[in-house]
Amino acid sequence: MKKAPYLQFSFRSSQFDRKLSSMKIAVLMKEQLQNHRELSACRIPPVRVLAHQLGVSKNTIQAAYDELKAQGVIESHGRQGLFVCSPDPAFSISPVVHGKAPAPQLVCPKIVASAESNLRDIPLSNVFLDPAILPIDKINECFRSVTRNSGDQASYDIQGYKPLREIIAKRLRQRGIEVGADHIMLTNGSQSALDIVSRSLQSKIIATENPAYYLGKALFDFNQVTSIGLPINPFEGISFDRWEKLIGEHRPKLLYLTTNYQNPTGYSYSSAELNKILEWSIQYDFGILEDDWGSDMLSFSEFRPSLRSLGGDNILYMNSFTKKLLPSLRVGYIAANAASISTLVAAKRMSSIALPLLVEKTLFEFIDRGYYDTHLKFIQSELDRRYQNCLNLLSELMPEDVKWTTPGGGPILWLELPMRFSVPAIIEKLKSQGVVASDSSTAFFGTPHLHGLRIGYAYLNKSSMRTALERLAVILNNLEPI
Amino acid sequence: MKKAPYLQFSFRSSQFDRKLSSMKIAVLMKEQLQNHRELSACRIPPVRVLAHQLGVSKNTIQAAYDELKAQGVIESHGRQGLFVCSPDPAFSISPVVHGKAPAPQLVCPKIVASAESNLRDIPLSNVFLDPAILPIDKINECFRSVTRNSGDQASYDIQGYKPLREIIAKRLRQRGIEVGADHIMLTNGSQSALDIVSRSLQSKIIATENPAYYLGKALFDFNQVTSIGLPINPFEGISFDRWEKLIGEHRPKLLYLTTNYQNPTGYSYSSAELNKILEWSIQYDFGILEDDWGSDMLSFSEFRPSLRSLGGDNILYMNSFTKKLLPSLRVGYIAANAASISTLVAAKRMSSIALPLLVEKTLFEFIDRGYYDTHLKFIQSELDRRYQNCLNLLSELMPEDVKWTTPGGGPILWLELPMRFSVPAIIEKLKSQGVVASDSSTAFFGTPHLHGLRIGYAYLNKSSMRTALERLAVILNNLEPI
Repeated sequence: MKKAPYLQFSFRSSQFDRKLSSMKIAVLMKEQLQNHRELSACRIPPVRVLAHQLGVSKNTIQAAYDELKAQGVIESHGRQGLFVCSPDPAFSISPVVHGKAPAPQLVCPKIVASAESNLRDIPLSNVFLDPAILPIDKINECFRSVTRNSGDQASYDIQGYKPLREIIAKRLRQRGIEVGADHIMLTNGSQSALDIVSRSLQSKIIATENPAYYLGKALFDFNQVTSIGLPINPFEGISFDRWEKLIGEHRPKLLYLTTNYQNPTGYSYSSAELNKILEWSIQYDFGILEDDWGSDMLSFSEFRPSLRSLGGDNILYMNSFTKKLLPSLRVGYIAANAASISTLVAAKRMSSIALPLLVEKTLFEFIDRGYYDTHLKFIQSELDRRYQNCLNLLSELMPEDVKWTTPGGGPILWLELPMRFSVPAIIEKLKSQGVVASDSSTAFFGTPHLHGLRIGYAYLNKSSMRTALERLAVILNNLEPI
Repeated sequence: MKKAPYLQFSFRSSQFDRKLSSMKIAVLMKEQLQNHRELSACRIPPVRVLAHQLGVSKNTIQAAYDELKAQGVIESHGRQGLFVCSPDPAFSISPVVHGKAPAPQLVCPKIVASAESNLRDIPLSNVFLDPAILPIDKINECFRSVTRNSGDQASYDIQGYKPLREIIAKRLRQRGIEVGADHIMLTNGSQSALDIVSRSLQSKIIATENPAYYLGKALFDFNQVTSIGLPINPFEGISFDRWEKLIGEHRPKLLYLTTNYQNPTGYSYSSAELNKILEWSIQYDFGILEDDWGSDMLSFSEFRPSLRSLGGDNILYMNSFTKKLLPSLRVGYIAANAASISTLVAAKRMSSIALPLLVEKTLFEFIDRGYYDTHLKFIQSELDRRYQNCLNLLSELMPEDVKWTTPGGGPILWLELPMRFSVPAIIEKLKSQGVVASDSSTAFFGTPHLHGLRIGYAYLNKSSMRTALERLAVILNNLEPI
């Protein structure tokens, strides 16, 4: 039988000399029990526990207990242990609480729950890569290798495992981003990088794309950051006039931009746009946080200029291994500079202290062995293939007035539907046929200026993609106009 | 030689039909280059890249480039690639930016940097366990075992790996905490649990112990939560009158309390105190967040009552495997209830989405095999031994008017020095002799009511502890009074 919890006593050592006598212990225990009658009928700690607590011998405690028994303060209940003598004969085994403690009042962040889906549903809007093309065996091999080598595993580096920061910095320098390991901070994926930066802002106004990465938009709300939507149309690019007007009006202190494969539009900025944004940053005095999750998924990604490489090291640059390598690995990073790194590390320490060291070591091993470069080349050509297949299927299957973007590889594109269709109705019909598409309407600031769906071709193999788009085509061809 | 980054073009597909001709591409590219003269002298993307981007054949792009060359818009620079013809003969290889982007304005959290220490210094105040008594080999064995078994490794559970939540809930129920896996959420150590709860509060007033866990106190500031200090004296316990007065005055909506081994005092609450706090929670309508990091380190910990077990499931209970198992593992958890769990999971999703799955699986394996219980028994008796040794050394070495608490095992105690000594002076002298002690003064709200040091006996082996305390004794015996 399970024994009951025991009472904890507080001994005020200012009341006694170093060497506590059994009599003194008995007096102090009796005092506490009399002052707190709600403790009656509770279990007394085992002799050994109290002896340890007080740093005295078990004999001393045993003598104190004998004294308390003799005084009728405590009594033995056989194998159940010692109990406080209760005025109430129906003793309870735990301290009496006069009701249940109130609930803490919490505020739930406003986020849309992910669409429910069965395992057999085909996810048409997924931004993740097909697990079948992820290098899980090689990652596991690195985990095993790292755990076989001894070395310090108890402690951690708050900023992140240094060899991993070094190899990341080296890779960034090869892409024209001048940065050293000292200015890199590892994060729990991109989300945590975005959280840390948005919480650290002095002036809490961020501008980002409209439609926005919806979990970023919700995060800004959660962090009481005002966010401004800068309209992006993946068929048109950005409107220089409207952006400049909005920036001039709202004077955001930070622009959070996903420069390649913006989610949900799949848009990648042109060089003219990147340059204009850098000009504005000086003119309107705002900082930039560049989210570059997408460029690694493109062939020739090493030649793709980033805002950071063009605009200097004041620009905060973030990227992640999550999507491209393994979502459950949870490692991303921020490239900062000498002025900002210590603030970011302090904010990370506040929120979570550090990442699991073995994960960081494993990722270092994976990159250092060359597996990551091999893997990137593989997924680049695999995504190119899936992209091309998706374009071919769209050309083959979609009605004449449906259009789509041509992002040139990567994971996602935007499918724009004519206004005669209701997007929620299409999503519902797709769902009834086992195809799950995301409703992007919550990603917009105000009334959506696009009317369509995000298509994720990185997650689906050829036959699933055909099935999903065939079902969509049938729905579009048979749906009554609104 | 490394090739330069190339320009990115944005093609407005609303301007063209599905099948883009090479002539149309050439016209659109020329238009963009003329509108953005700052792009001149930049590299044009390789044929293959643009062919992918637009979903047309390489021949089409080649024809467009030939046309642009014929028009004098672009030119070949041999093996360097194709470049935009520049009006300036000294072409540059990247887009011209007219200055460096401004820095984002960030606010650094106010936290005290950890004391600098050499590897050979003896850390006298460390709250961690000696790495020599951590089960690193067994954890590594579990990592290897988990990576050998296939199974889903790509996705994650935002709330935490379910089998791990189940086994944690089972263990909690054995300690009188009624909770199921559905109401447990895994967190990145204790810090992240505290971060998530304090950010989710509706009314941002927290009361906590004075002196407080200093990284918690700093976190509350960071999260714009007002914190109230409830004075705790590890020699006297809590003052019921002063606590009730402070609670009545400030009306905090949450009490964050470390019920065992409060940091830095090492104090554990008595049952009378726990019961009084529960009464107040009803009377003054506040929620409770109980941090129970310490009880597992005590012999007979399974009989130690927690506030959560006494006060019901509205009480948020947090604990962590970090200190007891492996600091670099970074896994803690919150036990919530049906009303609060979805809010906490949404807030976790905001801040970091999930923990690394392999770490969660490994920890499950470690507990499920029984290694964790064996390990806890081992560290409990090991810490008992180190505690007893520390008490013996203190009795042997300390001057007569120095006193210390007797927390009964665990990792830390409080050493109180007579007012005639300056604590900072002692810390400085210790440092000069290779012993690092923490200055706890920043953990207090206002003027400290204690005057001493945290002693961590869980980290130091017998000989290091003797060396450190001997050096402290010499300093105390030779120091001039203030």
